[in-house]
Amino acid sequence: MSEILRRIAAVIESRKLENGGNPEKSYVSSLFAKGDDAILKKVGEEATESVMAAKDIRNNMPAEKLTYEVADLWFHSMIMLSRFGLGPDDVLNELARREGLSGLVEKANRNK
Amino acid sequence: MSEILRRIAAVIESRKLENGGNPEKSYVSSLFAKGDDAILKKVGEEATESVMAAKDIRNNMPAEKLTYEVADLWFHSMIMLSRFGLGPDDVLNELARREGLSGLVEKANRNK
Amino acid sequence: MSEILRRIAAVIESRKLENGGNPEKSYVSSLFAKGDDAILKKVGEEATESVMAAKDIRNNMPAEKLTYEVADLWFHSMIMLSRFGLGPDDVLNELARREGLSGLVEKANRNK
Amino acid sequence: MSEILRRIAAVIESRKLENGGNPEKSYVSSLFAKGDDAILKKVGEEATESVMAAKDIRNNMPAEKLTYEVADLWFHSMIMLSRFGLGPDDVLNELARREGLSGLVEKANRNK
Repeated sequence: MSEILRRIAAVIESRKLENGGNPEKSYVSSLFAKGDDAILKKVGEEATESVMAAKDIRNNMPAEKLTYEVADLWFHSMIMLSRFGLGPDDVLNELARREGLSGLVEKANRNK
Repeated sequence: MSEILRRIAAVIESRKLENGGNPEKSYVSSLFAKGDDAILKKVGEEATESVMAAKDIRNNMPAEKLTYEVADLWFHSMIMLSRFGLGPDDVLNELARREGLSGLVEKANRNK
Repeated sequence: MSEILRRIAAVIESRKLENGGNPEKSYVSSLFAKGDDAILKKVGEEATESVMAAKDIRNNMPAEKLTYEVADLWFHSMIMLSRFGLGPDDVLNELARREGLSGLVEKANRNK
Repeated sequence: MSEILRRIAAVIESRKLENGGNPEKSYVSSLFAKGDDAILKKVGEEATESVMAAKDIRNNMPAEKLTYEVADLWFHSMIMLSRFGLGPDDVLNELARREGLSGLVEKANRNK
């Protein structure tokens, strides 16, 4: 797995209240203290902000904003995963599984 | 960078129309052919589906569904990044930069 | 209540399967047949599309697109309300209650 | 149009900075002062909260929460409409137009 994702997942884990995380000092701990909805809400929020940043690029804003918002989106996704006993390795394994299944990263057989 | 993210980014790149991607054969190419909004809409959609899957875990559904939806979310985020000339390495670098800045993965100084 | 909201709510109600709605003929009935997630997903989707339409206005697209997307958002909100035994009158009553409470439509005391 | 929607639209209008709205006293004025993105972000946020409230009903939470979140969603939709020179009458007219066109509230001819 990516070294940086592993390190971030480890830090998130250490911020859980049962691992000694302090909601007054750590943003991640404060989300864990607030509960499921606070975490899920952030995932929705960062997705909306990513969409807005992408739209802004077409209106002559710098692309860096999109990088920044997707970083936020992935970061909060990882907090959500951690909250439910999962991690980025599960996601990467799922992506690898799909790539292996199809020879390409497609969702050809999905009807969405 | 994660090997799997690198491979997926390469496949996405190869699915661009200017790289020979065929919208009739490839789901990713079909999104590129439809344009920005089709891609951005999927990012919003997969975020909503992730939130629903997380809620379902609290209602006794298996956690695998969340893994699956976050994989969809990250995959479509990567298509969005690619659309705007960016890639997962930009996102991981931004995450690494934040970790380096703070000694921990926090957004303590952000006022959101 | 608004006459048009009342009429739409009545049509939605008539599209429920238990009221004789036919998923093969009616879009609303087909959503009811698919279940909660199909309906909730549409609410998230239409919110994202509204945000994109608003962004497009700043990029010289016509404002009518936003009217259209908000109509979609409200329409699917009403399907969601109906699914859970609620209707637009509940929403309007809640809005009226807030206005009455505060003398103005504000959420001054909410900490969000 | 619904009397309550009309009243709310009028209050929102009066909260615009150019109409004397004070961002320090009024939540709506503070959103107008922050700009487009703050308003659009709230629409995305309230949609996510509506979806979560609907999910909670299936987990034995009271349905009132959904009424409350949809009221938030419609209220912030109206602030967004106002920001772009539109109002709830435009949305209701669009809904009425669709109903008239089809004899029923359907989107049968749309390919989504």
